[in-house]
Amino acid sequence: MAEMAHLVAARLRGLGASVELCPTSGHPVVYGEIDAGAPRTLVFYNHYDVQPPEPLDEWTAPPFGAEIRDGRIYARGVADNKGNLLTRLQATECWLRGAGSVPCNLRFVFEGEEEIGSPHLEEFTHRYGERLKGAVGVVWESGGKDASGRPAISCGVKGICYVELTARAANQDLHSSQAAIVPNPAWRLVEALHALKDVAADRCLVGGFYDAVRAPTATELALLRENPLEEQRMKANWGIDAFINGLTGLELSTKLLFQPTCTICGITSGYGGPGTKTVLPKVARAKIDCRLVPDQRATDIAAKIRAHLDARGFRDVGMEVLSAENPSQSPVDGALAQAALAAARATYGEDVRLQPRGAGTGPMFLFKEELGLDCVSGMGCGHAGAHVHAPDENVFVEDYFGTVAHVGRLLGGLGCARARRARGRQGGDVRSAPAA
Amino acid sequence: MAEMAHLVAARLRGLGASVELCPTSGHPVVYGEIDAGAPRTLVFYNHYDVQPPEPLDEWTAPPFGAEIRDGRIYARGVADNKGNLLTRLQATECWLRGAGSVPCNLRFVFEGEEEIGSPHLEEFTHRYGERLKGAVGVVWESGGKDASGRPAISCGVKGICYVELTARAANQDLHSSQAAIVPNPAWRLVEALHALKDVAADRCLVGGFYDAVRAPTATELALLRENPLEEQRMKANWGIDAFINGLTGLELSTKLLFQPTCTICGITSGYGGPGTKTVLPKVARAKIDCRLVPDQRATDIAAKIRAHLDARGFRDVGMEVLSAENPSQSPVDGALAQAALAAARATYGEDVRLQPRGAGTGPMFLFKEELGLDCVSGMGCGHAGAHVHAPDENVFVEDYFGTVAHVGRLLGGLGCARARRARGRQGGDVRSAPAA
Repeated sequence: MAEMAHLVAARLRGLGASVELCPTSGHPVVYGEIDAGAPRTLVFYNHYDVQPPEPLDEWTAPPFGAEIRDGRIYARGVADNKGNLLTRLQATECWLRGAGSVPCNLRFVFEGEEEIGSPHLEEFTHRYGERLKGAVGVVWESGGKDASGRPAISCGVKGICYVELTARAANQDLHSSQAAIVPNPAWRLVEALHALKDVAADRCLVGGFYDAVRAPTATELALLRENPLEEQRMKANWGIDAFINGLTGLELSTKLLFQPTCTICGITSGYGGPGTKTVLPKVARAKIDCRLVPDQRATDIAAKIRAHLDARGFRDVGMEVLSAENPSQSPVDGALAQAALAAARATYGEDVRLQPRGAGTGPMFLFKEELGLDCVSGMGCGHAGAHVHAPDENVFVEDYFGTVAHVGRLLGGLGCARARRARGRQGGDVRSAPAA
Repeated sequence: MAEMAHLVAARLRGLGASVELCPTSGHPVVYGEIDAGAPRTLVFYNHYDVQPPEPLDEWTAPPFGAEIRDGRIYARGVADNKGNLLTRLQATECWLRGAGSVPCNLRFVFEGEEEIGSPHLEEFTHRYGERLKGAVGVVWESGGKDASGRPAISCGVKGICYVELTARAANQDLHSSQAAIVPNPAWRLVEALHALKDVAADRCLVGGFYDAVRAPTATELALLRENPLEEQRMKANWGIDAFINGLTGLELSTKLLFQPTCTICGITSGYGGPGTKTVLPKVARAKIDCRLVPDQRATDIAAKIRAHLDARGFRDVGMEVLSAENPSQSPVDGALAQAALAAARATYGEDVRLQPRGAGTGPMFLFKEELGLDCVSGMGCGHAGAHVHAPDENVFVEDYFGTVAHVGRLLGGLGCARARRARGRQGGDVRSAPAA
């Protein structure tokens, strides 16, 4: 992690940015500033950490080799998020080399703990927040093309409450013949999990779980209607016959973006290798990921899960909160969102989707709710088959350069606004932004 | 496995046995014969395979190092079953060195697939069964002292039906944000498992599961009453407050030995490492071990589990049978059982337990039901804290030599029977059996 932070800092310095490694209780935030004397300031938020590469045997290329094959780059993090981070740096470089300067002031916030829930980013925003205030907004880290190949711009994220449940029994793994008389933590965990969810209805049973869920506005619903999910392609890509409960259309989009989830990300107990091992496990663990929507709060949901387990008689099942982030929503008709949309259309053509929010999570609330900065997401080089968080993560080389261009045009657009204002005052010519 | 088979064969040949490696569709059976011209023949059944050593980081000694520390030998298989296998060879060696010959003819059946359910031992018993018929019986592979330090002799085993359940959804692990709309096989598996068992009652819900369960006879119940489990010590050893549903006394013994089980030996899905990984798993697997009692049949139980899952709507959940063995019961008042008991008392003193059967599994039915040979178990060097099938498997050095003596005395006892018959005919003196 330290090596990666220093590598990112060096790349930033190479652009002439003033760079600080802002220490936190965890990994440092790499913070960079480029002041162009422009009236507008734009913030880039990205992260230099990645998900674990496991399971290693399911990769067709070394996860840290960045192999280019058939027009794609394969590497852990190439879509999420090292690839996108680099597009910001290279778009900046294009401006500097092509025009001699960037059309707006830039602030780079590159953290190292996004994939574990950004537990210490708040330390950065508290200390450095003043340097960001007044910016036009924050270009978020993630994004890319949907299953139909259309770019999608969005203005919000879900939150997350990620907990680990642990059931224990004997102090050691026992021969499974003893299971006739010794409690089995795996069965106990199955019961606790069963108590958390009505699986058939795909509804979380935790008391009060849905209380703070905000319904979509008319504008948001209209966007969902205008931009239906590419259901056939998604199903084909993922090899599934149907979505949960056969949902389609607006119901499906609304569920994806406006409903919280309660997801088993992992269960482990006893023996998981090939063949048989006749063992009575001493422990069973489940990792549970709840994606949250406005106005749910992560710590509140964690407390409700604990209370629900207690009320259902599962006081013996341990629970540890591993990650807690609140959801966040910026307006879809804000200046930054509209500038990002215009830059996307200039880059990719008119067929660009604008959606209220994404289904993923990130610490937007620290910027939006605490610093008052609108956030826009979707300026990334991912795609529907990018295998984000999974083996064979990849992006198309073409999409990578498309993203560089998209980001470059956004800078140009924000700069043109300055130029338009200047022209309004002085009547001078405006040089159009170079194609980055 | 091949190396181990040859090592065992070489040890047998070193005793003067005629040895064959009987090929099967799996690993070979090492078969040895020592003919002493005696009227009685005894069969030893043991196995040279062991359980996987994982989890490796929970061992305090190398699992294949046989480290001796504080009076114990630590090694995978030292209790189950390489230690016991060696005691048979060394007891034989004691007779050969001390008396020049063994007091009864010996047949050694050492298989290499006990830990995976002896799937090919039947090929051996079909081809070599004639060579075993007429023997006084079979000394089984397992056994040792209970939690109070008392040796326990028993005359039967449970069967096993070990299946793996598999739930699948997408063709790849997905970012967990997609869990709002893409089915999660981990939740599906939790539901299927929940449908298999009433966990609170610890009762399998599979239709017909208990139909063939034979109640204990009056003799068997009397033995259970005479020899209660060392409940306090077992609980202390295993660090549990209570047995399942607070059972004690005769209820507990009966449940352990006369009731079948339905046990989760392992669950795996998604991410199980430290911290968080926000993944929607593509697959979820559970290993289920049902220990069976007379007159349940393993293939019948497998069919009933499949039918139950189908009837509950889980046709999509795959099931593979990984192991299937029938239970077996020999009479507790048979000649071999009584001889083993007498040898145990001569070795360890009067405080020896005789119990109808053990809670473990082995292919006794191939010998008892198919070849008509009584089986006796419990002549082993294990103990309640032996960590069989678990990290830090161990036996006491003292118990190891105790078992050599116990086996040696059984041979002597069976030989004395010959001598007694001979004395009855000839009136000659009988040299007492040496302490092996």
